[in-house]
Amino acid sequence: MVTHTPEKLQIVLKSIEDFLKQEIYPLEKMFLAQDFENLLPQLEQKRQQVKDLGLWAPHLPEAYGGLGFRLIEFAKVSEVLGQSPMGHYVFNCQAPDVGNMEILMHHGTDEQKEVFLKPLTQGQIRSCFAMTEPEHAGSNPTWLSTTAVKDGDDYVINGHKWFTTGADGAAFAIVMALTDPNSDQPHQRASQIIVPMDTPGFKIIKNLSVMGESGSGNFSHAEVMFEDCRVPQINLLGPENAGFVLAQERLGPGRIHHCMRWIGICERAFKLMCQHVVSRELSPGKPLSSRQLIQSWIAECRAEMNASRLMVLDTAEKMDQHGAPAVREEISLIKFYVADVLQKVLDRAIQAHGALGMTDETPLAFWYRHERAARIYDGTDEVHKVAAAKKILKRYV
Amino acid sequence: MVTHTPEKLQIVLKSIEDFLKQEIYPLEKMFLAQDFENLLPQLEQKRQQVKDLGLWAPHLPEAYGGLGFRLIEFAKVSEVLGQSPMGHYVFNCQAPDVGNMEILMHHGTDEQKEVFLKPLTQGQIRSCFAMTEPEHAGSNPTWLSTTAVKDGDDYVINGHKWFTTGADGAAFAIVMALTDPNSDQPHQRASQIIVPMDTPGFKIIKNLSVMGESGSGNFSHAEVMFEDCRVPQINLLGPENAGFVLAQERLGPGRIHHCMRWIGICERAFKLMCQHVVSRELSPGKPLSSRQLIQSWIAECRAEMNASRLMVLDTAEKMDQHGAPAVREEISLIKFYVADVLQKVLDRAIQAHGALGMTDETPLAFWYRHERAARIYDGTDEVHKVAAAKKILKRYV
Amino acid sequence: MVTHTPEKLQIVLKSIEDFLKQEIYPLEKMFLAQDFENLLPQLEQKRQQVKDLGLWAPHLPEAYGGLGFRLIEFAKVSEVLGQSPMGHYVFNCQAPDVGNMEILMHHGTDEQKEVFLKPLTQGQIRSCFAMTEPEHAGSNPTWLSTTAVKDGDDYVINGHKWFTTGADGAAFAIVMALTDPNSDQPHQRASQIIVPMDTPGFKIIKNLSVMGESGSGNFSHAEVMFEDCRVPQINLLGPENAGFVLAQERLGPGRIHHCMRWIGICERAFKLMCQHVVSRELSPGKPLSSRQLIQSWIAECRAEMNASRLMVLDTAEKMDQHGAPAVREEISLIKFYVADVLQKVLDRAIQAHGALGMTDETPLAFWYRHERAARIYDGTDEVHKVAAAKKILKRYV
Amino acid sequence: MVTHTPEKLQIVLKSIEDFLKQEIYPLEKMFLAQDFENLLPQLEQKRQQVKDLGLWAPHLPEAYGGLGFRLIEFAKVSEVLGQSPMGHYVFNCQAPDVGNMEILMHHGTDEQKEVFLKPLTQGQIRSCFAMTEPEHAGSNPTWLSTTAVKDGDDYVINGHKWFTTGADGAAFAIVMALTDPNSDQPHQRASQIIVPMDTPGFKIIKNLSVMGESGSGNFSHAEVMFEDCRVPQINLLGPENAGFVLAQERLGPGRIHHCMRWIGICERAFKLMCQHVVSRELSPGKPLSSRQLIQSWIAECRAEMNASRLMVLDTAEKMDQHGAPAVREEISLIKFYVADVLQKVLDRAIQAHGALGMTDETPLAFWYRHERAARIYDGTDEVHKVAAAKKILKRYV
Repeated sequence: MVTHTPEKLQIVLKSIEDFLKQEIYPLEKMFLAQDFENLLPQLEQKRQQVKDLGLWAPHLPEAYGGLGFRLIEFAKVSEVLGQSPMGHYVFNCQAPDVGNMEILMHHGTDEQKEVFLKPLTQGQIRSCFAMTEPEHAGSNPTWLSTTAVKDGDDYVINGHKWFTTGADGAAFAIVMALTDPNSDQPHQRASQIIVPMDTPGFKIIKNLSVMGESGSGNFSHAEVMFEDCRVPQINLLGPENAGFVLAQERLGPGRIHHCMRWIGICERAFKLMCQHVVSRELSPGKPLSSRQLIQSWIAECRAEMNASRLMVLDTAEKMDQHGAPAVREEISLIKFYVADVLQKVLDRAIQAHGALGMTDETPLAFWYRHERAARIYDGTDEVHKVAAAKKILKRYV
Repeated sequence: MVTHTPEKLQIVLKSIEDFLKQEIYPLEKMFLAQDFENLLPQLEQKRQQVKDLGLWAPHLPEAYGGLGFRLIEFAKVSEVLGQSPMGHYVFNCQAPDVGNMEILMHHGTDEQKEVFLKPLTQGQIRSCFAMTEPEHAGSNPTWLSTTAVKDGDDYVINGHKWFTTGADGAAFAIVMALTDPNSDQPHQRASQIIVPMDTPGFKIIKNLSVMGESGSGNFSHAEVMFEDCRVPQINLLGPENAGFVLAQERLGPGRIHHCMRWIGICERAFKLMCQHVVSRELSPGKPLSSRQLIQSWIAECRAEMNASRLMVLDTAEKMDQHGAPAVREEISLIKFYVADVLQKVLDRAIQAHGALGMTDETPLAFWYRHERAARIYDGTDEVHKVAAAKKILKRYV
Repeated sequence: MVTHTPEKLQIVLKSIEDFLKQEIYPLEKMFLAQDFENLLPQLEQKRQQVKDLGLWAPHLPEAYGGLGFRLIEFAKVSEVLGQSPMGHYVFNCQAPDVGNMEILMHHGTDEQKEVFLKPLTQGQIRSCFAMTEPEHAGSNPTWLSTTAVKDGDDYVINGHKWFTTGADGAAFAIVMALTDPNSDQPHQRASQIIVPMDTPGFKIIKNLSVMGESGSGNFSHAEVMFEDCRVPQINLLGPENAGFVLAQERLGPGRIHHCMRWIGICERAFKLMCQHVVSRELSPGKPLSSRQLIQSWIAECRAEMNASRLMVLDTAEKMDQHGAPAVREEISLIKFYVADVLQKVLDRAIQAHGALGMTDETPLAFWYRHERAARIYDGTDEVHKVAAAKKILKRYV
Repeated sequence: MVTHTPEKLQIVLKSIEDFLKQEIYPLEKMFLAQDFENLLPQLEQKRQQVKDLGLWAPHLPEAYGGLGFRLIEFAKVSEVLGQSPMGHYVFNCQAPDVGNMEILMHHGTDEQKEVFLKPLTQGQIRSCFAMTEPEHAGSNPTWLSTTAVKDGDDYVINGHKWFTTGADGAAFAIVMALTDPNSDQPHQRASQIIVPMDTPGFKIIKNLSVMGESGSGNFSHAEVMFEDCRVPQINLLGPENAGFVLAQERLGPGRIHHCMRWIGICERAFKLMCQHVVSRELSPGKPLSSRQLIQSWIAECRAEMNASRLMVLDTAEKMDQHGAPAVREEISLIKFYVADVLQKVLDRAIQAHGALGMTDETPLAFWYRHERAARIYDGTDEVHKVAAAKKILKRYV
C-alpha cells in the first residue's frame, strides 16, 4: 500500500512537521508581509538548526550530506514541507535548486561537482535554470532562440529568457541554448550550459512583477539577457545537444516533487478551513461548520486530496521501480489532476474564510495567487492532457 | 501498493475477463434488446460453465463453494465483472443477493443457513432486501412505517416498500420492520426478518417502471405490500431490534462492491470510447481522436478512473485490516466520488460516440440511464458528503 | 425587453398552458408507460380540441390555418408546449414536421405544396427528414454517401440513413442525397428530394433502440435504406445541389424551437423539483427544502434558466430583424449553452427526487434519457463551440 | 429588448470608451506597478478632462453635475468603465462613494448635503462605509458589536471595523452602529452615522494586506477603530434605527453596478485573450487559436458573458420600473451568477496567456487576485443562493 510508511520514515516526517510548526509557521506572517530577502538572516539560522537535527537535504545521497531518500520517501517529505511556503527552502530542497543538484549529480564533471554542486548541496549558494523564452510558447519546448556558438574554447551565448526563477541572488544559471539549431531532430538541437551569474554579458533585466509582486531571491522570477556572453566549453553539462534529454530527466521527478508540495499546501489549507469553520459563528452557538454547503466542500476536498496523494505516490513508486520513462502517462495525469485539485481546495478554503480569506493573515491568499501558476509551469494542463491522451490512444489504434 | 496483485489472483482475474469476453459480451445485444427473463436459460448455462471453471462465487468462503476471497481480492474481481451488465449475475455475486448471503452467513441460525443461505450460494434461488419505503426519504433510514408485531409465535408484518430489487422471482425477502417503534434509540427500533415470497399477505404490487423499463428478475425493482403477513419468529435474522446494525454492516462492503463495479463499467466505457474515436473518421484519414476536446476527455477520464480505483482499493485494504467501522469516512468519500466519476465517464463516452451513443448498440446508454441511480442508492451523494464532513470536522472542534 | 410579451400573446400562452394542464398532463402517465402509438386516438381528439380553440399550428401563416406567429412569438409558445412531452405534437408543431412544413412553404412547387404540405399542415399526415448516415460523423454534414442519380425523368436513390425521426408511420421523407458528388464545392453536392414512404426501394429497416426504447410514430428514430429507389425529378425540393443551403435555413429557426422547448422542459422539471422538496419530509416537519444543498440547486437552476431564456429570445428577436445568417454565432452559443442547462436542471431535479426521480412516475426520467441527445443532435456541443469561436476569433486576426 | 441602446446613449458610451482607450489604458502599467497614491496627480488631470467632456458622474442627477442616467443607462456605462481598473474612479462613480452619494441624496439633511455630499459629487473629497466587523460573519449583517450611545447632543461610538474600503485618505465615513441593541427586531437595532475621519477616537489601524497588497487611497481596505468617538447627533443619516433599511437600499443598485463592472472586466479579459491567441504561435504559422481547447473557452466565455449581460440589464430595467424590493430574487441570482462567470473568464484568459498571464504585463492578474472577492463582498455566493431559493420556494409551499 503506497500509503504505508515505514516507522523510521514516520519518525523523520514527524520531526520535520514539528520543526515546521515550531520554527517556521511563526515566521509566516513576516514572510507574507515583507520581501523574502529580509527573512534571510532568520532562515539561515533555521537552516543551521535543520542541519543540527540531521534533517538537511532529504533528497540528497548521504555522501552529499543528505538523507539518501528514494523518490517515494522524498515525496512524503515534500508533502510535509509544502505545508509552509518556506518549508522547502529551509531544508534546501527548493526548486529550481533541487533539479539543478540532481542534474549536476548525474551529469556533472568532477570539476563541475566541486565548483557548483558542492556549495549548492550545502546551501552556500543558490542557482537558477534559464529555459523559457518570452518570444516562444512554453508548450513547444524545442522552439528556442537562444544560441550558444563555439568560438575557440568558449561558447558565446546570445538570447533572452524569462521566468528564470531565483536568478536574483543566484551564483550560477544552467542555460538551455541551441548548439545545433539546424538538426533534423528538434530534440537534439540544444545543450545545457553552466553560466555563472557574474559572467560579462549575462544580465538580469528585472524581477518580473508576478501577481503584484516582484519578490526577491528564491521567491522571484527574472527576465534575463545574454549578450555575447562567453563561457568556457567545459561548462557544458552532459553531452552536447542533449539539453532536452536532460531537461526531460529532471522533469519527471520534478513533477512528483511539485505534486506532493501541492498536496502539502492542500492539507494546510484544509486544516485552516476546518479550524475556521468550526470556530467562526454565524450567530451565537451556530458555527459555519453547521452549514451543508460548507460540509460539502469539506467532503469534496478530502476526497480529491486523498485521490491526489494516492495517485502521486503510486506514480512515485512505479518511477522508483521502473524509471521515469515508464510513467510518462501517469506523470501527465497527476500534473493536471493535482494542479486542479490545488486550485479548487484553495478556492474553497478562501470562500469558507470569507473576507479573512482575501487578507494575508493566512497563507491562503499567497498560494491562491502564486500557485495559479501550477496549471501553467512544467507543462500546462492542456499540454499534459493531450500528451497523456496520445499515449493512451496509441494502444487502441 | 494496493494496485499490486499477487500472481495467483492475476490468473483468476484473467480467466474471468476472458470468460466475460468470450461468453458474456456476445449476449449483450440480446440483453439490451429484451427482457432479462428471456436470457435466463442461456445465463443458467453460463453459470454452470463458471462453476466448472472453478470461478463460482468468488466472495464466498470455500466451505460455501466460493473462492474465499478477502474484500480487496473480491474488489478486484468485482471490477472485472462490472465490465458487463450481466457479469455479477453469472458469477452469483449480484446485489442484493451478495449482501443477503453475507448477512445470513454472519447472523443466520443453522436452520436459516440450511433453508435460505445454501440454495442462494448455489444459485438455485434468488432473494431480495425490502427496506426503502415510498413514504419516507431514504436519507433518514430510521424513519420507517413497516411494523412487525408479535402475535403468538409469529410476527405480523404490515407495511409498504419499494425499490425492492429483484423481488420478481425471488424465493424470499429480508424485510426491515419496526419491532420496537417507540424506543428512545432510533437505531434500535427495527429488526430484519426473513419472509418467503409466497407468504400470504406479502404481495408484489408491480415492478416499478424505472428509466422506461420495468425489467424482470434480478433486473427489476418492485413495489411490495405486507398486509397482516405472518411469519414465525424464528425467521428473525440476528438479534431483535438490531436491524440497523446489520444493515450498516452490509453497507460497508456493499459500497466497496458497488464502487469497484462502477470502475469496471468505467473501464469498459473508456475502452469503447477509445476504440470508437480512433476508428471513427471526421473526414477521410482524420479520426475523431485527433481532436483536442476528445483528447482532453480521454485524459480526464483516465485520471479520475485511476484516482477512483486507488481510493477504493485503499479503503478495501483498510477495511480488511481494521474492520468496516474504522473506514466509514473513507466509505462515504468513495461512494460519492466514484459515483460522480462513473456519471462523467459515461457522459463523455456517449458524447464521443455521437448519435451511436444514444442507441442500444453499445451498453453505454443502458448504464447511463440505470446507473444514474448510483448517486442515489445506498445513500445519496449529499448524505455521504454531510456524513464524511461531520466525521472530519469533529477532529477540529 | 425581450421578456416583454404583448397582452394578446399572453392570452394565447395562457390558453395553451391551461389546455396542457387540463388535457395533456393527465395523459402523461399513459405516455410514459406505453407505446406512443397507443395514445394516437386520444391525441387525435386533443388535436381537434386545439383546432376548435383556434390554437392550431401557431408557427404557420394564417393562410395555412395557423396563428401566423413570428419566430419570437412562436419561441414563447414553444416554451409552453415543451412542458409536456406531447405538447408540440398536439399543436402540430413537432419536429421534424415543423421544419419540413417551413421548407415546403418556402421552396416547394405548387404541386408539392398541394400534395405534401397541405395535409401536413392539417395534421392528416406526418413526415420525416433523412439526412444522417451511420457511416459518417454527423459533425461533417457534407460527407454523405447517399446518391441520387438521374435516369430519364427520375432520380434513382441509393443509400443508408439513420436517426430518421418519425419515419415510422410517416407519409413521406425529405431525403438529402448527393446529386453532384464531385463538385469542388462540398456544400453544393447534395439536393433535397421528396420521397413518399411507399416508394419501392425505400425501406424502414427498424426503429432504432434508443435509450432502451424503440418507440413508435413521431417518437421513434428509424434506420432506413434506399435501394434503387426511383422518384420523379419533380420531387426535387428547391434548386438542384442546394440541399445544404436549405438544410442550413431550417436549422437556424429549428435550433430556436429546440432551445425554447428545452427551456419548457426545464421549467416543468424545476416546478416538479420545487413542489417535491417543499412537501417531502426528511423527518416530521422538516422538509427537504430546508437543506442548503437543495437550496443551492434551486438558485443555480433558476439563474441558468433565466439566462437561457433571455439569450434565446434575444437571438430570436435578432433573427426576426436581421435574418438567420446574421445570428449564426448566437445560434451556436445558445445551442450548447441551453443543452447544457437542460441536462443540469434535469439531473438536479432527479437527484432532488431521490429514488422517485428514477421512476416513470414523473416525466423527469424520460427527459433525462431522451434529451441526452440535445447535446448531440443538430450539431454537437463541440461542433457549435468550435464554430462560434472561429467566427469570434476572425474579428481579432 | 434590454440590449437596445438609444442612439444618444450609444454616443456617450462610445465617447467614454474612446476616452478610456486613449487616456486611461496607457496609465495601466503604472497602475499595476505602483501604489495608487502615486497616480493621483495624473488621475486628477484625467478627471478634469472628463468634466470638460461633459461626462462627469453619469450616475448623478444633472442638478449635482451628473448625467442624470437611469439605472439601466448607468449600468451600460458601468460596463464600459469596468474595462479598466481606474475607469470608475476617473468618472467619480467608484465604490463606496457612489453608494454614499446615493444615500446622502435620498436621506441626508440639507446641511449634510452641503457639507458632505456636494464636495463628494465634485470629486473634491472621498468617503468610506464602515459596516463589516472582523469579529462577526458578514453573512449575518445584523450581528454587530459597534455601538453609538447618546450622551448629551452627541453619539459616543465604540467599535472595531474592517474592510472599510477607501478609508485611507477619505474625508468621512458612514458608520453602521447599534443604537437600539436590544430591540426585538434585529433589523431595527442599528443606525447610519456620519463620522469625519479626523474625529478624535476614530483611528485607522492599518490598511489590510489583501492578496499581497496594502494599497492606498480608494484602492485600500482599512481596519479602523472607534474609541469613545464623539459626533453630534445631527450626523445621524436618515431615521434612527433605520441603518439596515438604508443599507438594503444601497445594495440593490450597488449590485447592479458591480455586476456590470464585472462584465466590463470580462469583456476586456476576453478581448485580451482573443488578441493573444490569434497572435501567439505554437510553431511558425500555427497560432494558439487553432487549438480546440482554446476555441471551447472562447465560445463558453462568450455565451456566459452574453447571459450575464442580459440578466443584469433585465434586472436593472425591472428595478427602474418596479423598484429594488421587487427584484430581490433577481439581484441575488445575478450576484452569484456573474461573479462566477467573472472568475471563470479571468481564469481562462490567464490560462490562455500562459506564463504571461501570471505577470502584471496585463491587468488580468490584478483582477484575478482582487476580484476573487466578488464572490464574497456584498453577500457571498452562498448567502445569495440561499436567499434566492427561499424566495422561490415560498411560492410552492
